[in-house]
Amino acid sequence: MALPAKVNIIDVGPRDGLQNEKQLVPAQVKTELVHLLQTAGLREIEVTSFVSPKWVPQMADNAQVMGQIQRRDGVRYSVLVPNMKGMEAALLTQPDEIVVFASASESFSQKNINCSIAESIERFAPVVQAAHAQGIVVRGAMSCTVGCPYEGDIAPAQVEYLARLLHDVGVDRVDVADTIGVGTPLKIQRALEATFKHFGVDNVSGHFHDTYGQAIGNTLAALELGVWNFQSSVAGLGGCPYAKGATGNVATEDVVFMLHGMGIETGIDLDRLVDAGLYISAQLGRPSHSRAGTAIAKKRPVQEGAATGQICA
Amino acid sequence: MALPAKVNIIDVGPRDGLQNEKQLVPAQVKTELVHLLQTAGLREIEVTSFVSPKWVPQMADNAQVMGQIQRRDGVRYSVLVPNMKGMEAALLTQPDEIVVFASASESFSQKNINCSIAESIERFAPVVQAAHAQGIVVRGAMSCTVGCPYEGDIAPAQVEYLARLLHDVGVDRVDVADTIGVGTPLKIQRALEATFKHFGVDNVSGHFHDTYGQAIGNTLAALELGVWNFQSSVAGLGGCPYAKGATGNVATEDVVFMLHGMGIETGIDLDRLVDAGLYISAQLGRPSHSRAGTAIAKKRPVQEGAATGQICA
Repeated sequence: MALPAKVNIIDVGPRDGLQNEKQLVPAQVKTELVHLLQTAGLREIEVTSFVSPKWVPQMADNAQVMGQIQRRDGVRYSVLVPNMKGMEAALLTQPDEIVVFASASESFSQKNINCSIAESIERFAPVVQAAHAQGIVVRGAMSCTVGCPYEGDIAPAQVEYLARLLHDVGVDRVDVADTIGVGTPLKIQRALEATFKHFGVDNVSGHFHDTYGQAIGNTLAALELGVWNFQSSVAGLGGCPYAKGATGNVATEDVVFMLHGMGIETGIDLDRLVDAGLYISAQLGRPSHSRAGTAIAKKRPVQEGAATGQICA
Repeated sequence: MALPAKVNIIDVGPRDGLQNEKQLVPAQVKTELVHLLQTAGLREIEVTSFVSPKWVPQMADNAQVMGQIQRRDGVRYSVLVPNMKGMEAALLTQPDEIVVFASASESFSQKNINCSIAESIERFAPVVQAAHAQGIVVRGAMSCTVGCPYEGDIAPAQVEYLARLLHDVGVDRVDVADTIGVGTPLKIQRALEATFKHFGVDNVSGHFHDTYGQAIGNTLAALELGVWNFQSSVAGLGGCPYAKGATGNVATEDVVFMLHGMGIETGIDLDRLVDAGLYISAQLGRPSHSRAGTAIAKKRPVQEGAATGQICA
């Protein structure tokens, strides 16, 4: 089939990315990152999560960050919410979208959130109802749709089962996430096709990790099935908790480089996006994990006094 | 079309890779690298070049390395040769294949080898004849088939022109190289299709650089056109001379991870390949540029006294 003419990128760097970085990042820096992303043309940004600060100290400043953002019309600000307690706090900050999460792997669900897949969905069912009562969209993040750190390969039937449960509980759209980055193009297509049994292609996004260097190939494979929503993380923020020191989320810069190279519109200014990646990499004091971001930055003329951040491949 | 069932990988790390690394690597280390690659199952290895040591000091030990290799049946050892002087030296070392090179960009040809594309081909015409006189295969490396550091985009017509000249001079097979890594899937497919006008798909290999993180997507795009020969470099050896500090050759480990994940045979043992990448990265004192190699190494149990090399994403 023909590739989509337009693609929508959901940058998950401020939440999914920074949550998996070791150091705590000040709320002011997170806010600036969101501002740089929206300046670059991002129209969906996953900002923070309303999870217990005991478990995720990196997101303890969730309300502060949501309050500081200078919101722009046409930009959707989403937040992750695990339960009604989190939802009550989240609603005070007026998010545009709520993200709930579940795993396609029973073992991962048990080890990660200490309950079965079906129980995890019962747990957030009232969150979905509360969101819809206020006209807020709910996105379901499906983790381990290709492989699981405990079970290995995940069958497409498991993905279809999870997609059905999410559809039945009322989730509006879903992410097909390759949480540990072991997916390759044909496996990704099988996971997407399993999801299409319950969600139309317009409501399915690809969320690929670059741990084994496969995310760009997987993105192409998803585009070939008509998928036009993708999650990625500026500068490749966020490592892989299952292979410490390895790469996690695919870098938004690398995805946008491919899309623009194929004549696909994103509404994103790649140079401004690279600026955002250099900013947050410098704040973290580490190189960008984006190859396109690194190459573009390396080719820029060196300006005296300019903060280019640390960059490498 | 259906993807190929088998793929042949040509590891160019010992030549194209090490030639673009800053430091000089001892002949013994190069020899060990070739041995590790053939142990991992590689059946084509680009070993060295017979270029003036004044221009390429990294390859001054060419005859020594070719002499030290314990050759295996069924493995093709290729060497790069620019002219008849190099050819005379190369022939003494009994290579299985001679590699000649030319650019699809006139500006690149002028700046790189100080002559036009047509002149560069006249220059190595006697090399092709000498090789064929001894029954040696000749491969033509076509550089800058998508983009050029001086001209920007390269039109498919330029690639077709170069492929025609190479065909007419008697070259047996060609590489479609994205020398600066700016290619994206559709542009790569156009360059390949231009090449197919003069060479059958069995005699065309893809040679992609990961400078902008695109090589794995481009490999998938080439597979979709039936291409089943690819050049890559273990551990991503070799930087990008046009964006210093950025990534060059795609890592063989990342390509093999994708192929095996799609059920495509390569004859390569990925674990042994990762060993080869860790060996040469440790010798160079720098992290591997392979994401798959890094992730696989990170998951290995730490063995006391084991040299795992420096690894990072």
